[in-house]
Amino acid sequence: MTSTPTAGARPDEVRRHNRTVLLRRLHVGGPCTRALLATELGLNRSTIKALVDGLAESGVVEERVPRRRTGAGRPSLLVLPQAHAAVVLAVDVRVEQVAIALVGLGGELLGRNSWNLRRKAREPDEVVTHIVESTRLLVGELGVDLVGAGVAVPGVVRRSDGLVHEAPNLHWTDVPMGETLRGILRMPVVVANDAELAALAEHLRGVARGSADVVYVSADVGVGGGVISGGAPLRGAAGYVGELGHMVVRPGGRPCYCGSRGCWETEVGEPALCRALDLPEGSPRGAVVAELRALTTRPDPVPAPLAEFVDWLTLGLVNIVNMLAPELVVLGDLFTALPGWLVTQVGQEVRRRCLVSRAVGGTRIVASALGADAKLIGAAELAFEPILDAV
Amino acid sequence: MTSTPTAGARPDEVRRHNRTVLLRRLHVGGPCTRALLATELGLNRSTIKALVDGLAESGVVEERVPRRRTGAGRPSLLVLPQAHAAVVLAVDVRVEQVAIALVGLGGELLGRNSWNLRRKAREPDEVVTHIVESTRLLVGELGVDLVGAGVAVPGVVRRSDGLVHEAPNLHWTDVPMGETLRGILRMPVVVANDAELAALAEHLRGVARGSADVVYVSADVGVGGGVISGGAPLRGAAGYVGELGHMVVRPGGRPCYCGSRGCWETEVGEPALCRALDLPEGSPRGAVVAELRALTTRPDPVPAPLAEFVDWLTLGLVNIVNMLAPELVVLGDLFTALPGWLVTQVGQEVRRRCLVSRAVGGTRIVASALGADAKLIGAAELAFEPILDAV
Repeated sequence: MTSTPTAGARPDEVRRHNRTVLLRRLHVGGPCTRALLATELGLNRSTIKALVDGLAESGVVEERVPRRRTGAGRPSLLVLPQAHAAVVLAVDVRVEQVAIALVGLGGELLGRNSWNLRRKAREPDEVVTHIVESTRLLVGELGVDLVGAGVAVPGVVRRSDGLVHEAPNLHWTDVPMGETLRGILRMPVVVANDAELAALAEHLRGVARGSADVVYVSADVGVGGGVISGGAPLRGAAGYVGELGHMVVRPGGRPCYCGSRGCWETEVGEPALCRALDLPEGSPRGAVVAELRALTTRPDPVPAPLAEFVDWLTLGLVNIVNMLAPELVVLGDLFTALPGWLVTQVGQEVRRRCLVSRAVGGTRIVASALGADAKLIGAAELAFEPILDAV
Repeated sequence: MTSTPTAGARPDEVRRHNRTVLLRRLHVGGPCTRALLATELGLNRSTIKALVDGLAESGVVEERVPRRRTGAGRPSLLVLPQAHAAVVLAVDVRVEQVAIALVGLGGELLGRNSWNLRRKAREPDEVVTHIVESTRLLVGELGVDLVGAGVAVPGVVRRSDGLVHEAPNLHWTDVPMGETLRGILRMPVVVANDAELAALAEHLRGVARGSADVVYVSADVGVGGGVISGGAPLRGAAGYVGELGHMVVRPGGRPCYCGSRGCWETEVGEPALCRALDLPEGSPRGAVVAELRALTTRPDPVPAPLAEFVDWLTLGLVNIVNMLAPELVVLGDLFTALPGWLVTQVGQEVRRRCLVSRAVGGTRIVASALGADAKLIGAAELAFEPILDAV
């Protein structure tokens, strides 16, 4: 039982469902011939034709004779999603930077902007004002209309209304981010945990494409994680997602702001990485990345602080794999700068020590390909979800 | 996005879907009037009538005028699932005991049997032989036909074919349990991890009924866990489920047979509980339960070994709640004997120390009501899944 059916289905719902499936296929998978759409979606050609004709009439897709022909007979028309038919705003709020982008149907990035946050400018009101002004500039330049927005925040977010319950590294508590932005922008705004969105991005457009069971783990100032299970984002009660960074790996370890001690975040987050690299805590991000990139080959012996970091990273991943049985773990954000030998070593150790990894045939551990853009791309996909139903 | 639609739907699939939904409602929720079925399932009365008539014709349900009438006019007919219309075999293989039961449509327990396993009798072949003989006896006594079987095993199980990859406490490796039983019983046989099935049982028929996001945790000799997420069982790659018992809570702690150290199982499983209660390891189950039941009030001071057990239990639960954000954690099997004050204390401490619990409004931690039967009931539900589609 992958899902419990709890309600019946009516014919108009079936048509709507088929339209959504088709549009989502084009949005995520890109241009595709009518013939292939029929095969992939298991629908007959006349149903596909009716759906595509409807979408073409409202300008959501365009049809073209494909350049390369295969086989004899009349070629199947190529269906292309039109980026400008639906444009969303994506926002990635980080501890030290905010990035925004306008993204069109099909995932095309039409324009972007970002700015650093000084400590004083981290007040929610200031962040919102800057987002709104910056968005208006981009919208004006590009001459597009926005149909919705998605926002990534490094914290515990209530999905139903976009309340940021706690974003400790931003010092935000109970910030009604969704409500505020909806009021100003006058469009649907969805807010979610940033790691959850990065997991979604990696699943739809990154290294986790085609993998149904994935855990995304990333280090920024804090450590976050997002889970894709059976092809869909994993959420818990009230739409909240888990906080992998607050798994206790070191009982009685350093106190964490969350009220616990020895959380994974305190052992492998950016400050911990500074300690591991013998850099002063609070070193600029560039210095941390440069130091990591310089570690092209494994030092022999590995300095004790770095070895300790590797141990805690491994232990947290052993727990995650044992608990969630993913086929793939994606290391994102600051973790993408980890040297290859280190990622390989951690992967081997996880597979050796992990009962569940052995069963699933060896969980792969890889660096993100989307890098720091994953959260922004995920925010755009979040904004597209309600839109794809309604375009 | 709670699920990604990936295929279209045809009218015959819709009818089949509606039939499954109706049957599942009757199986899990029990007898119901036609009128209420229409309301609950969001289908119109004529669709309900057609579906119920079809099921009544094949003897799957019976219709009766309800005893208590509500309102004026003709009373809506009561639809009752017929237990004998579909009977499944449920098997719960434990480290020290095997239990079997025959369960009818609607969840009625028609008959059961159980026997202890001596160390020598734990060989897979002997277990299978005993299951088959015992089943034949029960089937003969009750005069029923079986339509399928579900088997709960305390180990890592591949869902696709019922291969028991590792069941360490039984000393089983790569046992083709599903294939063997299918060959002998000549019916569909599904095998799954026992804690996963107990979670399903608690969700459908126990304390977790109505809760969409639940974690079930149980101690037998080992410690296992099952997760219900968004109303459906959580599974990872290749259908394997997580092994919560092998989360590392005490780095560098006692070695675990899984190859790791300081696993949760080594700190809160039955042997650990013996240490906590100052009983010799390997004490009979009855003695452990009696000792727990005697702890009706909190000793002051709590003896150090018991306090330590409580600490590790708490820490594991903090991690589970932080990672999975459940609204409810159900403590099962041997944990159901934990005294009330201890469960209350652990719950308070989890809510205090757990970022995610605070966000979701306080994860409740409760003892199972199904107790030791949860795994058996879950095995029956597993067997019913393919049957409900086809009856």
